[in-house]
Amino acid sequence: MFKTILQKVKDKNPLVHCITNYVTVNDCANSILACGGSPIMADDEKEVEEITSICHALDLNIGTLNERTIKSMIKAGKKANELLHPVVLDPVGAGASTLRTETTFKLLEEVNFSVIRGNISEIKTISKGSGTTKGVDADLCDMIMEENIEEAIIFARELSKKTGAVIVITGVIDIVADEKKVYLIRNGHVMMSQITGTGCMLTALITAFCGANTEQILEATATAVGMMGLCGELAYENVVKKNGGTSSFRGELIDQISLMGGETLERGLKIEAREI
Amino acid sequence: MFKTILQKVKDKNPLVHCITNYVTVNDCANSILACGGSPIMADDEKEVEEITSICHALDLNIGTLNERTIKSMIKAGKKANELLHPVVLDPVGAGASTLRTETTFKLLEEVNFSVIRGNISEIKTISKGSGTTKGVDADLCDMIMEENIEEAIIFARELSKKTGAVIVITGVIDIVADEKKVYLIRNGHVMMSQITGTGCMLTALITAFCGANTEQILEATATAVGMMGLCGELAYENVVKKNGGTSSFRGELIDQISLMGGETLERGLKIEAREI
Amino acid sequence: MFKTILQKVKDKNPLVHCITNYVTVNDCANSILACGGSPIMADDEKEVEEITSICHALDLNIGTLNERTIKSMIKAGKKANELLHPVVLDPVGAGASTLRTETTFKLLEEVNFSVIRGNISEIKTISKGSGTTKGVDADLCDMIMEENIEEAIIFARELSKKTGAVIVITGVIDIVADEKKVYLIRNGHVMMSQITGTGCMLTALITAFCGANTEQILEATATAVGMMGLCGELAYENVVKKNGGTSSFRGELIDQISLMGGETLERGLKIEAREI
Repeated sequence: MFKTILQKVKDKNPLVHCITNYVTVNDCANSILACGGSPIMADDEKEVEEITSICHALDLNIGTLNERTIKSMIKAGKKANELLHPVVLDPVGAGASTLRTETTFKLLEEVNFSVIRGNISEIKTISKGSGTTKGVDADLCDMIMEENIEEAIIFARELSKKTGAVIVITGVIDIVADEKKVYLIRNGHVMMSQITGTGCMLTALITAFCGANTEQILEATATAVGMMGLCGELAYENVVKKNGGTSSFRGELIDQISLMGGETLERGLKIEAREI
Repeated sequence: MFKTILQKVKDKNPLVHCITNYVTVNDCANSILACGGSPIMADDEKEVEEITSICHALDLNIGTLNERTIKSMIKAGKKANELLHPVVLDPVGAGASTLRTETTFKLLEEVNFSVIRGNISEIKTISKGSGTTKGVDADLCDMIMEENIEEAIIFARELSKKTGAVIVITGVIDIVADEKKVYLIRNGHVMMSQITGTGCMLTALITAFCGANTEQILEATATAVGMMGLCGELAYENVVKKNGGTSSFRGELIDQISLMGGETLERGLKIEAREI
Repeated sequence: MFKTILQKVKDKNPLVHCITNYVTVNDCANSILACGGSPIMADDEKEVEEITSICHALDLNIGTLNERTIKSMIKAGKKANELLHPVVLDPVGAGASTLRTETTFKLLEEVNFSVIRGNISEIKTISKGSGTTKGVDADLCDMIMEENIEEAIIFARELSKKTGAVIVITGVIDIVADEKKVYLIRNGHVMMSQITGTGCMLTALITAFCGANTEQILEATATAVGMMGLCGELAYENVVKKNGGTSSFRGELIDQISLMGGETLERGLKIEAREI
């Protein structure tokens, strides 16, 4: 299944509209291209509806939100909803400031999301209106480990019920859940947290995967999450061989996305599916 | 000739003012430095005239335009015209939204450009007020191939007549034309379309080359276009040796710009000149 | 001493709030992560006070300033002052436009800075209200060499007296001075001026180092400056081995920051301390 989903991205070359932060925007664009999509970044209120109309999916990332772009996100989101395009939310730093938390709730109120991806702190903020975000990183005491996985699954399922979106919680174990099914993904490497942008890049990948697999949002999302983790593992192996540091890792990560084939993907994924 | 033009960039170290998009801005800055220029990015209305006054050339790129920066582009463009600095336009995504198309026309009305560089879809939009832009990429059915090259040359020449600018249409074959002469450039590699920013980086290079060669805008532009393509070829060779992916390619591309010498350039360029 | 300072960054993992330019923001974020801190970029007036409150230090960089972000810088700076967080100023291009010069003075008036870092042209602008900035680069005739070092030290000391901040002037020799003591740092490599962002990245590093060493601002700053230069030297060595260009150098530079250990740091630093 996973390799078919990846193949569809390559075949359909989905055009992905991103309203995203200026910190990692270049990595997001290059990740989308690397997996087989085409990115277009456009955030002016006057053009976002038109731009999203020619695209296949929309990525809304509040990493460096401001008054101007918040309006554009809502407009683009509503238009994408109208056109039944998948819309993916990355609530970067929700919980870290009132503006981020309120914008996240505003977006959830105005736009129907196909997928919401965050770390546990961000997702808890969405769920409870609270959370202990340490800036844009997850609070350590909130991490999902094997010990608290059952609890986390139920939490994700309930939030999916409430929002109608597939919920992705990334961490040591990644959770991808809708109301009925969850994928637990054990790919990834700790070095992914030592560069900026792996979260944003993953959200961009998810958006491209959903844009090319609109009938299988849950599976497309799980594939993107697993593939990102697998690319992190392969990147780490190469970096170690070269005695490289974090910048090498970032380059290798995008390289691996661009080099990933269906067979390597199927072999490398550590994905467990559970009905819930 | 070509190596003399490159040498002038290195000798004169032109200061290039860029009002450009936030997706590829870092690559543009590093490309300008790599070829021998110095970049300065400044987009606030209150400073663009002053900043452009201390520079040698101006790069206007509408990749992530917004109301605020459109005003700044016009102001900077007018001031650069007053000072007889070369001004280069990159109409990213013209045709993809009304805002982009109208802004392009507004810029063409208010500013005299020395060079306009785009893919065939963007350039057609400028010419006809229409075009079938697929986001920020060229529409495939519009691509310039050996089959339709004659037609494309006439098209570029006519647009050059109309705008007074050197017209650059990048694609499989690149066209650089003014009213009387055209350069057909057969350098480049398909991997250049698998990363973001090669178009923007080329426009940045063209601006630097024109800033250091103000008496030879057509030739400086052709040299920059050919050199970018050649760097793409050399980068690809290195990436293959290392089993690299698209991120490696991006790094190698900028590396090659910084390593390019006059002799390698003269040997590697596949440039055909035609009087028209 | 130096290795203890570095170790504290790794142990305390300071959260660094950056309001910085969009050209080099990704490099700044990755540099902060590489040395052991965590970056958060946030520039909307509505959230900067709250964001800076959860951080350990604040980096204000005017590289692509605009009306909106200038207000945010002042707000964030005042709040950080209230909380006694270190605040670091990078007056990119001060002297190159009235907006940059006036904004720099406005910031100096409204905010107490722990450290101010610039090239000699920028620092002279701060001191005299004049200077011969060539865009964002230092004017060559202003460079600090062995010949004029005594003069430069007195200049830095006086400016430190006036502003209450540690003054960092980067160049061939780097000066880090307060009223009583100066560190002269002879690390670094000329290739650092052939990529964009080394100044911004250094300012980001200084902010992280100060955030984790609030009792030793002068020493933390000197350590960050020396470490950046040393990473430049090591990066250059690796680039030469690989026949790389400027993009390789940029990657290696961040790699070296992430790989730097206390012993290598102590051995490699070329820091001279003088009471003044």
